[in-house]
Amino acid sequence: MSGRHRVVVIGGGFAGLRCVRALRRAPVEVTLIDRRNFHLFQPLLYQVATGGLSPGEIAVPLRGVLRRQRNARVVLGEVTDVDLAERRVRWRSPGREGLTRFELGYDTLVVAAGARHAYFGHDEWERDAPGLKTLEDALEIRRRILLAFEAAEVESDLAERDAWLTFVVVGAGPTGVELAGQVAEISRDTLRDDFRDMDPQRARILLVEGADRVLTSFVPALSARARRQLERMGVRVIEHTLVTDVRPDGVTLKGPDGAEVPLRTHTVIWAAGVAASPLAAMLGQASGAEVDRAGRVRVEDDLTLPGHPEVFVLGDMAAAHDQLGQPLPGVAPVAMQQGEHAARGIVRRVGRAGPTGAFHYRDKGNMATIGRAAAVADIHGLRMWGVPAWLAWLLVHLMFLVGFQNRLLVVTRWMFWYLTRGRGARLITGHAPTDTVPPPG
Amino acid sequence: MSGRHRVVVIGGGFAGLRCVRALRRAPVEVTLIDRRNFHLFQPLLYQVATGGLSPGEIAVPLRGVLRRQRNARVVLGEVTDVDLAERRVRWRSPGREGLTRFELGYDTLVVAAGARHAYFGHDEWERDAPGLKTLEDALEIRRRILLAFEAAEVESDLAERDAWLTFVVVGAGPTGVELAGQVAEISRDTLRDDFRDMDPQRARILLVEGADRVLTSFVPALSARARRQLERMGVRVIEHTLVTDVRPDGVTLKGPDGAEVPLRTHTVIWAAGVAASPLAAMLGQASGAEVDRAGRVRVEDDLTLPGHPEVFVLGDMAAAHDQLGQPLPGVAPVAMQQGEHAARGIVRRVGRAGPTGAFHYRDKGNMATIGRAAAVADIHGLRMWGVPAWLAWLLVHLMFLVGFQNRLLVVTRWMFWYLTRGRGARLITGHAPTDTVPPPG
Repeated sequence: MSGRHRVVVIGGGFAGLRCVRALRRAPVEVTLIDRRNFHLFQPLLYQVATGGLSPGEIAVPLRGVLRRQRNARVVLGEVTDVDLAERRVRWRSPGREGLTRFELGYDTLVVAAGARHAYFGHDEWERDAPGLKTLEDALEIRRRILLAFEAAEVESDLAERDAWLTFVVVGAGPTGVELAGQVAEISRDTLRDDFRDMDPQRARILLVEGADRVLTSFVPALSARARRQLERMGVRVIEHTLVTDVRPDGVTLKGPDGAEVPLRTHTVIWAAGVAASPLAAMLGQASGAEVDRAGRVRVEDDLTLPGHPEVFVLGDMAAAHDQLGQPLPGVAPVAMQQGEHAARGIVRRVGRAGPTGAFHYRDKGNMATIGRAAAVADIHGLRMWGVPAWLAWLLVHLMFLVGFQNRLLVVTRWMFWYLTRGRGARLITGHAPTDTVPPPG
Repeated sequence: MSGRHRVVVIGGGFAGLRCVRALRRAPVEVTLIDRRNFHLFQPLLYQVATGGLSPGEIAVPLRGVLRRQRNARVVLGEVTDVDLAERRVRWRSPGREGLTRFELGYDTLVVAAGARHAYFGHDEWERDAPGLKTLEDALEIRRRILLAFEAAEVESDLAERDAWLTFVVVGAGPTGVELAGQVAEISRDTLRDDFRDMDPQRARILLVEGADRVLTSFVPALSARARRQLERMGVRVIEHTLVTDVRPDGVTLKGPDGAEVPLRTHTVIWAAGVAASPLAAMLGQASGAEVDRAGRVRVEDDLTLPGHPEVFVLGDMAAAHDQLGQPLPGVAPVAMQQGEHAARGIVRRVGRAGPTGAFHYRDKGNMATIGRAAAVADIHGLRMWGVPAWLAWLLVHLMFLVGFQNRLLVVTRWMFWYLTRGRGARLITGHAPTDTVPPPG
């Protein structure tokens, strides 16, 4: 195989994995490099964060997905450097002395390393307001939500108990809306009979958004529907409002009148923004391409790096635009279609068939879920909410979940969730909640 | 309820939870204190450690199990002290300043805090040879096993690659046999087509046992059957051999001839012994009861602490004996029957019906599994191995798994495992394998 066109793909998310799969019959040699040994189905990550699903149910081992694809190999490693001039990628993998350095040349490079949540200059907020991008993030948020109810149960000071029962979700995009809805369901339904000394239904769930409405990627009428569904579930939606400070015992909110109001809470979840992997800035610097405020690198119409037709940048790292010049959203369908587009481009490169042409996003619709039987969807102007939107959401997410086994497991969990309102995976893990205590005796 | 007989149960494992459930119709007020918010089905923990099951599939939230039992409350906390004279329990729970102290009086106390793995004076081995008692232990072992194959894939030095592909399981009781069998299956079946640069089937799996046979709790004929099944799966069984040293790059084995042999490996799993919770020693000291070498406190025939008919000690913390004076094994059926016995004793105490009488263990049989279609079982002298024993094992474990949802999820996983030899939950989590690397850029 050594004479074959060498493709290196960085990142096994929606864009990268789809690209590798689309190359399965191409006369190329693919190396997929990822820091993790699994593909994560991020759209359901919030359900892990709220105890509805277990981590193993929304992740599939990359080696398992690609085991039969003989032209692909998987490398567990973190890319530290891309040499555009020499066409080489350098990375580190776990090995003898902790980590070992490796490098590999490429004929085509596909960079799809995704994004992390971002605090816009306030990285110190991360400790008290974790975001949701990885499985570990999800387990930490689950831990904090569940521990807050436990602490409220044993707290005798009433103001302090209220602080434990106050949950603030910052940012009302799809992730924020989903998280707020789920925390409301946990307090109203899941935990209703679980405690004896306090009533979890007294929990306050605040969803704070800087813009004038929730889900700004939808038309205003659907934002209004989503807001009404959230409020019916017990979420207080606070629009036009910014978070100006985050502390261990509270946040400060700044409303439309400019007044700053402190609020006591011990549980803040950050869903207010993301920043691209630092690899995007590195590529921008090396190629002279523009890097936007979210750290994404501006790409050509065909998704290649300016001046580098042999380098594709995909997914959340790429600042790509649709035909009307509108920025493409950071969602899985965009990433998957980009992965396929890059694969087509690579096949044309190998066959010396000339450039691929511009990437056109086929928008299949936009949907966001809020809770049990509550969602909004906009499919080519067909606007849905409530049960129909929720059923559409369930169906689409099951269809795109990778792995037949995971689909069965998730359907089983959802059936129980729907029938019993229970959440089987509401475990406090990581370490025991009391691990700071020295053992007795 | 304040005039009712107050029962405090420490530990929500098989003994404690069964005791609480058996008291559901009794005129008592039960407080269950556990460090974790879930009951863990420990007999399947090795399948989490080897990627067959996800943590959420073998754990159920304690509050969920007891939500309808109105005479029971759950407290998340770690017991720090038991005052036998004053009949009070003290514990700490997560709260405002990290942890807050609480205390509660009892009329009857049930102590069932279980055991941890033990290194018999070599606690420094724990870092390089983790044991398997908690979900976190299982995820750490899963991480090490999977990372070893990843490191072998990128290692160019052949001796070092062999060290990565050498797995040592110390102790051939049921847990050690199960783990060794599963690691063999992972290398022979699950990962067979997953790598490109090395062959995972070249992995060596060594099961080291100090006694003269594996599974010493079975009759010798079944030990021999188990050994043969292990060897057929590719496990090298080394009997009569002690581990005299554990280092990051290997272990030292001491055979029957007394010679010490060093062995290079990076993956050692400890399944050689357990020690009771330190609460057992504390109770022994306070009551004058004998404490054995495994840290268990000697109890009366009725499972009460000598001189304290109001204190039951159950499960892995109690040194209890059967009618013939033989020590009872540390298995789930013993713990569950003891929990029921203690509950009956409490009901008699409340009704002033006199003492309960001695605990008699009804031995329903003994079984251990080795792998796919491989197990041994001894049910009242009916000895089985191979497929029949394995089917019996599957059935019994599904029956006793707590929670209908978990049963469905586990059956789904097992179906795929049986049909595809895959392990859907083979994720490397905790933190990214390359997290020690500073981010690029």
